[in-house]
Amino acid sequence: MKVESFFSENIKAALKNDPPGEWMPSIPDKCIRLSSGFPAPALVPSEQLKAAVAKLLEEEQDLPLHYLGSPRIEKLKQQIQVRMADRGISISKDELLITSGACQAIDLIARILLNDEAVVAVESPTYMEALEIFKNYTQHFISIPVDEHGLQTDLLEEVLSERKRLGLTLPRFLYTIPTFQNPTGTTMAAERRQRVLELAAKYNFLILEDDAYGELSFNHSPQPLKANDKDGRVLHVGSLSKVIAPGLRVGWIAGTNGFISALAWFKKDLDHPFAQATMATFMEDIIFEERINLLRDRYRSKCAVLISALEQFLPESVSWYVPNGGYFVWVNLPGVDTAQLLTHALSEGVSFIPGKYFFLDQNDGIEFLRLSFSYADEKDIVEGVKKLGKAVNSILK
Amino acid sequence: MKVESFFSENIKAALKNDPPGEWMPSIPDKCIRLSSGFPAPALVPSEQLKAAVAKLLEEEQDLPLHYLGSPRIEKLKQQIQVRMADRGISISKDELLITSGACQAIDLIARILLNDEAVVAVESPTYMEALEIFKNYTQHFISIPVDEHGLQTDLLEEVLSERKRLGLTLPRFLYTIPTFQNPTGTTMAAERRQRVLELAAKYNFLILEDDAYGELSFNHSPQPLKANDKDGRVLHVGSLSKVIAPGLRVGWIAGTNGFISALAWFKKDLDHPFAQATMATFMEDIIFEERINLLRDRYRSKCAVLISALEQFLPESVSWYVPNGGYFVWVNLPGVDTAQLLTHALSEGVSFIPGKYFFLDQNDGIEFLRLSFSYADEKDIVEGVKKLGKAVNSILK
Repeated sequence: MKVESFFSENIKAALKNDPPGEWMPSIPDKCIRLSSGFPAPALVPSEQLKAAVAKLLEEEQDLPLHYLGSPRIEKLKQQIQVRMADRGISISKDELLITSGACQAIDLIARILLNDEAVVAVESPTYMEALEIFKNYTQHFISIPVDEHGLQTDLLEEVLSERKRLGLTLPRFLYTIPTFQNPTGTTMAAERRQRVLELAAKYNFLILEDDAYGELSFNHSPQPLKANDKDGRVLHVGSLSKVIAPGLRVGWIAGTNGFISALAWFKKDLDHPFAQATMATFMEDIIFEERINLLRDRYRSKCAVLISALEQFLPESVSWYVPNGGYFVWVNLPGVDTAQLLTHALSEGVSFIPGKYFFLDQNDGIEFLRLSFSYADEKDIVEGVKKLGKAVNSILK
Repeated sequence: MKVESFFSENIKAALKNDPPGEWMPSIPDKCIRLSSGFPAPALVPSEQLKAAVAKLLEEEQDLPLHYLGSPRIEKLKQQIQVRMADRGISISKDELLITSGACQAIDLIARILLNDEAVVAVESPTYMEALEIFKNYTQHFISIPVDEHGLQTDLLEEVLSERKRLGLTLPRFLYTIPTFQNPTGTTMAAERRQRVLELAAKYNFLILEDDAYGELSFNHSPQPLKANDKDGRVLHVGSLSKVIAPGLRVGWIAGTNGFISALAWFKKDLDHPFAQATMATFMEDIIFEERINLLRDRYRSKCAVLISALEQFLPESVSWYVPNGGYFVWVNLPGVDTAQLLTHALSEGVSFIPGKYFFLDQNDGIEFLRLSFSYADEKDIVEGVKKLGKAVNSILK
């Protein structure tokens, strides 16, 4: 019996285009992880979450351990509504769907909007997991380069008007991370934000706005696209993974009622009542602004340490964008194949993510890499960049 | 802007066939819930789970709060391998995928196997959430009646041979709950189990075996289909929801490596590291057999209380299957529309699930209802059935 013979046609196509297993080499335990887009261990509130679980189970006993028993799940919705309001987004309960992190949110949106003929517009480079999710639904993409001011809206318009002229399918949606982008760390400029919204109306597409890093500014957080969304074209995805803890998997989608009820229908029971109730209990006992301010201070400082180490240990030819928030620094190394560099770096004892993984056409990413300053501590960041510098010099020689 | 205009074609079809919102009336708080397929509150180990979280976070700090950081996630896999071995199913690590409960397992399987032309064979009646999940992918079903010995395999073979003769599409898979079925409580007889496996080979379809209740026998648990699966046709879905706690959402799929790696690819990051690590910590500190034996004793006793109350308070014309395990009793009330009965029952103060929700053609379920003895305590079960009897008598008069 051949198992593949039972797969549905679109799944066969997706697996053929993007076979499982094509991913990063495994990272030795002792390596300094400048690859990991995780929050800093010291900034994950383990103790308070332990206390939250104890409080929750004391007050509610078995309720949060059933399917949807805890009244705190409704409370979490309210807490998220407040977060959204603080980002300039005013939404009712019916315009909000809690998901298992941003990934489930992106997958659900892809599921209701895409089929194998749909076209998706993405930033180049972009978040690799989102790309992988979209590729499960369609193989048709438009890829628009990002520069230091974010998505290049002029290029987007060029592509759109050309496609319209030729009678080609226009994108169903644009996937963008406008603020502290993964992987480039760049932020879309205000006038480009305006432009993207205008283009969406003009060419009739939706916008999937991924705001996972939006609150983690070093100075100020620009308003999300959703805050200026006049006709409900923006599906805004938020997450508590980067500001509290990824392991609880709390994300959400803010959108018009019409979208949210369709998304909810396809989400079914894929909820995590215990994690959601734990998160709500934790949130009710903290002052969120204080937590965010702490994170901003710490990550600003870690980013500065990384940038200064790059200046010190990397050769002149290497350049990078200086981010104003988020977790990442995007580095350009002319003449270096960063996949090859990774082998050297791992044996030196430092990891990063080669740029190719963030591009639809992996060749576009050969001379780039993503560094994360979120996870490693400051001493390790310096040490890690020093090791990276050694690895780069050994290749350039 | 009309949001529906952006939905993909298959989603439009699914929403048209099965619009959101068509579901049970809400149940007043004071009602005795004979509708809820939840474990008994007293049997949900809240205290031990609280201790497990404390132990986990003490020993691992932030690890289980990151994406896949906890080493206990691997341990959970081993614990499930042992559970499977105890059910007569020998599987390697690569033949096992942990999911967010049985629902995500069923959804993932539907996702890789179905498209809008695929045919699914289901039991009649069957688990309503599974039906809803399948309807998101296809509208083509074969519905095979269940009697007191489970799926009527003779009828299944008749339908299959007739479809083959006519050149009609054969099912991609059969969805079955062979042991302590939801909603009928029936168990598939040994010779029928053998027959189903033979038919799968003869007509080249797969079997999606849902074993959520399999361990909860009052006497003995029959071997799952997967235990006698010679050529890898059975995708076996298990769950800890009914034996530990639904709110942690730990389920799994056991299948051949080929299926598991494709399923894993589409599952992506939709994991719950914190819940999984909590479950593993809980499991390492209990003797599972003792827990299962306790559950069996308690549910056996609760079931007996329900059956005896039915004998006492329901009119002669009403009949039911006596289950040998699981959570449910399936009741037939000739001449009663159970959706209408529900209104009366709710005002008496008791809830149940009308039979129609468990059928593809809801008309087939009008005179049936599902009672659950799992959630309410014994006193409430008696009281609830008494109220149900009053509601039935008020309608039959």
